[in-house]
Amino acid sequence: MTDPIPDHKNRIHDTVAAIVPPGDALLPEISRRLDSLTKPPGSLGRLEALASHIARIQDTVKPSVARKAVLVFAADHGVAAEGVSAYPREVTPQMVLNFLGGGAAVNVLARHAGASVTVVDMGVDHDFSPPPPGLLVRKVGPGTASMTRGPAMSEAQAEAAVAAGIEVATAAARSGAELIACGDMGIGNTTASAAITACFAARTPDAVTGRGTGVNDAALRQKIAAVTRALEVNRPDRENPMEVLARVGGFEIGAIAGAVLAAARHRVPVLLDGYIATAGALTAVGLCPAVREYLIAGHRSVEPGHAIALEHLNLEPLLELDLRLGEGTGAVLAMHLAEAAVRMMGEMSTFAQAGVSERAGD
Amino acid sequence: MTDPIPDHKNRIHDTVAAIVPPGDALLPEISRRLDSLTKPPGSLGRLEALASHIARIQDTVKPSVARKAVLVFAADHGVAAEGVSAYPREVTPQMVLNFLGGGAAVNVLARHAGASVTVVDMGVDHDFSPPPPGLLVRKVGPGTASMTRGPAMSEAQAEAAVAAGIEVATAAARSGAELIACGDMGIGNTTASAAITACFAARTPDAVTGRGTGVNDAALRQKIAAVTRALEVNRPDRENPMEVLARVGGFEIGAIAGAVLAAARHRVPVLLDGYIATAGALTAVGLCPAVREYLIAGHRSVEPGHAIALEHLNLEPLLELDLRLGEGTGAVLAMHLAEAAVRMMGEMSTFAQAGVSERAGD
Repeated sequence: MTDPIPDHKNRIHDTVAAIVPPGDALLPEISRRLDSLTKPPGSLGRLEALASHIARIQDTVKPSVARKAVLVFAADHGVAAEGVSAYPREVTPQMVLNFLGGGAAVNVLARHAGASVTVVDMGVDHDFSPPPPGLLVRKVGPGTASMTRGPAMSEAQAEAAVAAGIEVATAAARSGAELIACGDMGIGNTTASAAITACFAARTPDAVTGRGTGVNDAALRQKIAAVTRALEVNRPDRENPMEVLARVGGFEIGAIAGAVLAAARHRVPVLLDGYIATAGALTAVGLCPAVREYLIAGHRSVEPGHAIALEHLNLEPLLELDLRLGEGTGAVLAMHLAEAAVRMMGEMSTFAQAGVSERAGD
Repeated sequence: MTDPIPDHKNRIHDTVAAIVPPGDALLPEISRRLDSLTKPPGSLGRLEALASHIARIQDTVKPSVARKAVLVFAADHGVAAEGVSAYPREVTPQMVLNFLGGGAAVNVLARHAGASVTVVDMGVDHDFSPPPPGLLVRKVGPGTASMTRGPAMSEAQAEAAVAAGIEVATAAARSGAELIACGDMGIGNTTASAAITACFAARTPDAVTGRGTGVNDAALRQKIAAVTRALEVNRPDRENPMEVLARVGGFEIGAIAGAVLAAARHRVPVLLDGYIATAGALTAVGLCPAVREYLIAGHRSVEPGHAIALEHLNLEPLLELDLRLGEGTGAVLAMHLAEAAVRMMGEMSTFAQAGVSERAGD
């Protein structure tokens, strides 16, 4: 267990302080460019809006997302002992090894999207020593404590988790990543995400709790009961996002929050995956509301709370494919649309170049 | 103008006769494979359904869509003279040249998807002579006659158009295409598609007629009036799909119908684009109901009639991005999802390979 050091608080503070919202100064030039291309104005719909959004984030009329990174943060959850998942806890480290071996869904989809995959142990209850090649070990602890009996982690641990996410995403941005997706692995983490969403979006546990990896009716009732108890025992205050994270969050959720902050600070768009990534984004937006404008919702999952979290963030997802896997899979699938949008903006001929007549006046 | 020859009728008949619906024999093996992969069963939602669908179409548990082709059929429409489009008629040949130059939206998106683009002149009102490199000239006529005053084309021309689509898609399948998308170009062709959809789906002109490339309210009223007149003048009988195509269709729509038939005959899945491609599919399904099972709806466009046509075909689109461009753009965007689905099925590790624990019994 890494001893949290005071530096984490400074790192978070400095990152938040450096974030500015994407400006509107380039918007006229972006719109002129999009409307000069050989298509009826606006006829590529959300693809045009997406290109414009990424251009504003990157502060250029020639955006690029050729270099893409998926950051997969893994951690265990004390609440998993309460029968909230269909899978045993040892699946978390097993899946970490699967990510490193390239055989998980996120690996296949990332290869197809042309994205790198970085796997980070934020607090898996397994001693990876020596760390297998490719694994970044930023372990904050051997899994959280059960949030049904007290805080999931200390505030110092919450800060360490966020700081680690900042560090990893900053490294990705400095290596040239032009689009970052955040993924997760952690048995029990839809339960933590439900508690976080209930808190930030001010909804009841039954509204935000779903079947996760696919639990049956009895386990769903246990899961709702666990979220209810966690909120009663911890009474997290949504005005204090770091407290919410510490009391009912997870190490990987904190890292995702940090990664979102760092991406925004480096003007890199962030593609959100499902419920866990969005819980991290809720935390990040709590810490710094301006980061919301750096977020792109990759998809809407079947978890009912995910739709609530996206709505709370005022984000409209690009895909809706009934996914409920996590790992970053939905975000990675949406990378293709982001790249298509950006290439459309950069590579299409203009009316003038192609000698195509523009529309008759209305 | 090519003189339609009786051979076209035989070609269509032989193609339809050779089409068999994809069987269910492999379904247990396909499901076993998908459930053996390191993810909760069903957690990749529609991606799993899509992989299974493509595997059934290709009749293999190892489907592939690595080789992809977009067939873009272009033609002019007599009804364009009735003020139904925001663009002048000369845009059709201009855009054909833009496709050949690689600068149109479909070219950019096809490059990104790794798909070839084939451009076919089915009846553009322009003499491309000598034909520019890359253009397939299968001109049935210099554009259709206006369907508001009589049939858009003769039945012999309709057969020639369908036969040309069969020929082009058969060549693509024989060259190894594992996934075919059909696109369109033709000023006025959403008007023809509206008439076709009204006929096959038994809906009123106002329900199926939209703004196409973006006409204003007055032009929308003219467009609805044109569809209404076309149906009154021609009274197409939906029980006779070739008659529907001849009376209110278009040369490119007939070619798309033929391409769909040929793809199904060669067990190649067809990704549908927007309203015009789906009007072609309605015609193909009219000619041979079994081809419906070879169709994958790429997206739902903003044209209100497109949703009606998809519903009539009982197809749920993969994307909904407010597109209204045509050319095959929505289908090409969805190719990525089809390829992701197939790669997921082929490349993910199984629980046994990765040493990951399966779910606890419910």
